[in-house]
Amino acid sequence: MYDATAENTTTTLNALQATQLFGAMSETASYQLFAASQKITMDKDSLLYLQGDNPEWFYLVLSGWVKVFRETFDGDEAIIELVGAGQFVGECTPLEGNTHTCSAAVADKAVLIRLPISLLGAAIKEDHKFALAMLENVAKKRLSQMKEIEGLKLQKADQRIGCFLLQQCNGQPSGERDLTLPYGKSLIATQLGMQGETFSRAIKKLRNATDVQVTKNKVTVPDLKKLSEFVCAGCSNQYPCKTPESDKA
Amino acid sequence: MYDATAENTTTTLNALQATQLFGAMSETASYQLFAASQKITMDKDSLLYLQGDNPEWFYLVLSGWVKVFRETFDGDEAIIELVGAGQFVGECTPLEGNTHTCSAAVADKAVLIRLPISLLGAAIKEDHKFALAMLENVAKKRLSQMKEIEGLKLQKADQRIGCFLLQQCNGQPSGERDLTLPYGKSLIATQLGMQGETFSRAIKKLRNATDVQVTKNKVTVPDLKKLSEFVCAGCSNQYPCKTPESDKA
Repeated sequence: MYDATAENTTTTLNALQATQLFGAMSETASYQLFAASQKITMDKDSLLYLQGDNPEWFYLVLSGWVKVFRETFDGDEAIIELVGAGQFVGECTPLEGNTHTCSAAVADKAVLIRLPISLLGAAIKEDHKFALAMLENVAKKRLSQMKEIEGLKLQKADQRIGCFLLQQCNGQPSGERDLTLPYGKSLIATQLGMQGETFSRAIKKLRNATDVQVTKNKVTVPDLKKLSEFVCAGCSNQYPCKTPESDKA
Repeated sequence: MYDATAENTTTTLNALQATQLFGAMSETASYQLFAASQKITMDKDSLLYLQGDNPEWFYLVLSGWVKVFRETFDGDEAIIELVGAGQFVGECTPLEGNTHTCSAAVADKAVLIRLPISLLGAAIKEDHKFALAMLENVAKKRLSQMKEIEGLKLQKADQRIGCFLLQQCNGQPSGERDLTLPYGKSLIATQLGMQGETFSRAIKKLRNATDVQVTKNKVTVPDLKKLSEFVCAGCSNQYPCKTPESDKA
């Protein structure tokens, strides 16, 4: 659903200006991009693009969640990234032979700004300052993936769930913390690469080890220090660690 | 051990010129880099740098293997990348706040070219064409990590080992194939994020499913098509898939 009222024009401009990539563009390029932008609302499960497609658009998420994923022939999904408000989706295709290396779909009703990928490709090619901003953006994504690979190889399932919860705590170092899960448990399980049963068992183990309670989408962490000690024993970082994925896009 | 004979100077120049990054540099910058390069031989387990260090050098591998890894306080290692001949190590630090985001050590006796990272950082900042080459380099690394995350989340241990073996087959589509493992089995197990016991069990399962025989460092694949069908059932790609990590650095 494409919406072009004056109010939405302002929302779009503000959202774009808050990103590191848009800020690094020349005035001409950023004006062109803004002028070609479209605010759209998409329902859960709507497809943005398929792995292997040639890209036409990239997206800025205003609200909701977009999952970037790869899918086997049998329909099993590996979530590569869950992208939330203030972050771009599909902006790396000009660096990847103009082909989508993953699929992307709306994981939870999303409002997005859709932007022509050709303008982004041109800005990278023509503008050194913008190419440096893209380098920073890709390096940040690579670092975030590196952390994930480390976790997948070294942390047990309960530690990985604990790590996911710690990432929602905004660096609060100790004490008690109440949380609301940002999206559904089955999506979190898929994101962490776990089957539903493994996920449920691991939540019980996490409770036994750290007293963390998960009831529906509410979480109580009675002792953040206890949780972080348990989680970070399986990691090269210590909480609060740098989370490049939480920086602005 | 630093070696500066005339023969080694030629080897160094040839090796640098064969890389995509060096080829994208201006003549002045590439000459400066070459003039400051040093060929070194390092024994197994020698440390190149530690996670968190400020970088002084980056490296081009001429022979042997360098493991890029992250280590927990208890000494568990997650291998992020195994870097072989023709590939760079540590070249991304100028994009990562001039800090090593991983440690690196020689996994198998290695001959390396050591190059000052400051010259690389300057080339990225000053030369648009070179920044674009770095973008291509980082995007390729990110894509390779994406594939690994997919495998870690979706493939079973036996499929992951089979995938590792397929990657050594240079895209041969079918028929029989004999292989020599590129490095030791325990290193392969660590790279794939498996304990030794899991690795041994998975090799047996792989044999039962695909008739692949592993004896010491020798592997016989009697039917590549059977192996690839077994492996790729857990993946969004089909063999022979694009392996960005096998492209030149």
